[in-house]
Amino acid sequence: MPIISRAAAEAADAADRLAPFRDRFALPDGVIYLDGNSLGALPRSVGPRVREVVERQWGEDLIRSWNTHDWIDLPGRVGNRIARLIGADADTVTVADSTSINLFKVLATALALRPERRVILTEAGNFPTDAYIAAGLAELLAQGHSVRAVPASELVAALDDDVALLLLTEVDYRTGRRHDMRRLTGSAQAKGALAVWDLAHSAGAFPVALSACNVDFAVGCGYKYLNGGPGAPAFVYVAPRHIAGLRQPLTGWLGHAEPFRFAPDYRPAPSIAVMRVGTPPILSMSALDAALDVFDGVDLVALRHKADGLFALFTDRIAHLAPELALATPLVPSERGTQVSLRHPEAYAIMQALIARGVIGDFREPDILRFGLTPLYLRHVDLWQAAEVLGAVMRERAWDRDDYRRRNKVV
Amino acid sequence: MPIISRAAAEAADAADRLAPFRDRFALPDGVIYLDGNSLGALPRSVGPRVREVVERQWGEDLIRSWNTHDWIDLPGRVGNRIARLIGADADTVTVADSTSINLFKVLATALALRPERRVILTEAGNFPTDAYIAAGLAELLAQGHSVRAVPASELVAALDDDVALLLLTEVDYRTGRRHDMRRLTGSAQAKGALAVWDLAHSAGAFPVALSACNVDFAVGCGYKYLNGGPGAPAFVYVAPRHIAGLRQPLTGWLGHAEPFRFAPDYRPAPSIAVMRVGTPPILSMSALDAALDVFDGVDLVALRHKADGLFALFTDRIAHLAPELALATPLVPSERGTQVSLRHPEAYAIMQALIARGVIGDFREPDILRFGLTPLYLRHVDLWQAAEVLGAVMRERAWDRDDYRRRNKVV
Repeated sequence: MPIISRAAAEAADAADRLAPFRDRFALPDGVIYLDGNSLGALPRSVGPRVREVVERQWGEDLIRSWNTHDWIDLPGRVGNRIARLIGADADTVTVADSTSINLFKVLATALALRPERRVILTEAGNFPTDAYIAAGLAELLAQGHSVRAVPASELVAALDDDVALLLLTEVDYRTGRRHDMRRLTGSAQAKGALAVWDLAHSAGAFPVALSACNVDFAVGCGYKYLNGGPGAPAFVYVAPRHIAGLRQPLTGWLGHAEPFRFAPDYRPAPSIAVMRVGTPPILSMSALDAALDVFDGVDLVALRHKADGLFALFTDRIAHLAPELALATPLVPSERGTQVSLRHPEAYAIMQALIARGVIGDFREPDILRFGLTPLYLRHVDLWQAAEVLGAVMRERAWDRDDYRRRNKVV
Repeated sequence: MPIISRAAAEAADAADRLAPFRDRFALPDGVIYLDGNSLGALPRSVGPRVREVVERQWGEDLIRSWNTHDWIDLPGRVGNRIARLIGADADTVTVADSTSINLFKVLATALALRPERRVILTEAGNFPTDAYIAAGLAELLAQGHSVRAVPASELVAALDDDVALLLLTEVDYRTGRRHDMRRLTGSAQAKGALAVWDLAHSAGAFPVALSACNVDFAVGCGYKYLNGGPGAPAFVYVAPRHIAGLRQPLTGWLGHAEPFRFAPDYRPAPSIAVMRVGTPPILSMSALDAALDVFDGVDLVALRHKADGLFALFTDRIAHLAPELALATPLVPSERGTQVSLRHPEAYAIMQALIARGVIGDFREPDILRFGLTPLYLRHVDLWQAAEVLGAVMRERAWDRDDYRRRNKVV
């Protein structure tokens, strides 16, 4: 049933079983935050936890905290909490480093599992860091590997006998279009390739089923839908069948089977811990751990269902209030993540105007206004109001074209 | 003038110009902390800064903080603060990732600068992660590179025409023995090799002169003498002559010349920012930034001078109180860092007994009791007392040999 009045939006909020979760976040007044897909909002659990880690664990217990507060196993513990959200078995996920660095480990590992093949197949227009990392690895290896980037519609046809692995981001960062993970993983594997997925815009946004889809490797981000804070450590998944005997090239001491033996030769940990490298940033990782508390008791199917309702509300209103903004996100729910992307030639300047009026989304080159839908802290009435403000900006043409010159910025 | 009484130690503290700096740290009661070379103590400036970053910058300003609080340039700003401590020019140091990962970038970069050579020369017994990373890179490249590890005394003789780079940790993590950076860098370069230094136990401990020693690359740790907190991000130095045109293989988006253009091809930043990879952990990096405040107004020569006094006090007392503990650290100040290492076959169990009595150092395989001297927060009377306690533990043989079985631990 479409929401066609502010009162109806308020009624939807009153009936929303996820509404109480909003209290788990510290949200600023006067802002409608539609950029949780770039930096998740602050969970209330984070501040006290970080204070505890800084003042008591570090300050008082000092070096002993590696044992007494088990900092040393924090990457695996947090990894297991994320595993539940992405359909992975226990002890197949660890938190470590950044998404880019985890991707490097995974790609190098996967290429070594397909030594007779030379191509990393990916989608043209994938988030650039994935393609950069793949190209950087290919160049480093100097063994004739290459990155083949094709449009989404040509991926399956491009799976030939030279493709070692298919590297895809499940949800396109620009448009929000979502790939069929199960189908594409199967297609890649049927051709003898491995499937590597980047879950940057998936983890914490909707149910992911890595194990059920038979995915080989995955990486993802801690600071978007997982709300782990700016630059939160990333995560990496390895299918159980690949963990035994796995080696990855960033052979740091914490990936060693016995790090504190300080043995002269590297011996890879026979577990997901092999994906660790150096000492992890405990403050940032503890913040991510605390942030995951907001998912306690959350049914991801219900979360996604609410996101679809917010999507419908917002896109319906925009179609009415600002029809010159072209929807870039698929209308079929299974074909998209949980964002709304709208195209306009002056998208950057429009977003600046919108932010100035307290509605925060972001801009992505070349012409995308992007709005993240995070049902744990967004109400229907927020989307109603955001559409009103965007409609007013468009109606008044209330943007400054000169802003465009300053656009090499984060938002 | 040797200190031969507790009163003399107290008098030395009363006369110590660095004594007031102790107030910059939050130190627990009842503990003498001699493990600042493993995890630096908590600077008082950190708690308020982290709270500000979590609650105001992240919580209220959200994604806008990348611009308004300039998170995006934090790695370079903190890098420049570290540059002062290690004798590096402005804009030659960035904070990024972990020491291990930075070393991977540096080694790959340096090998590419010496394409006709195949050997990474290092010291046998160097901190294992350095050797692991070098071996992991050599294996990944599969171009016949190898790691040649020789005793310190044979390093210069081992510099032949196949050595691409000399990789050394300035201060040995076990014994505290310090290399002559200037001489060895010169020897390597005279043979056509590049010099790469790991400053894990140098940065923040004493004056380092990277530029004056003509070092090519360096990496170092944020959580030891820099007090940046558990797993604080690491740093990386590139000599100005190598920055222009530099490429490193972990080609993440934040090392791109224009990250927010999201261009399909990687174009390396023409600056030290090329050493960045993914989004940095802002909470942990902000803690490191705040921690560096403790060095404001600190003369590193005076800092080192005090460390030498603490060294003499402690080793003199141990020679008197526990002569069965063999000093593993060189007596000549220029030949050591700022730690005291003592050998004993039951070192692990002895350290556990010592920690139980409130004197915290650590153990390193196979037989090393290790004590870090951090003059910003240690008093002469602390070292006097630590020696008394260690003497009593030895006299009473107050340790539990069974502890040894549990030794694959951090401390």
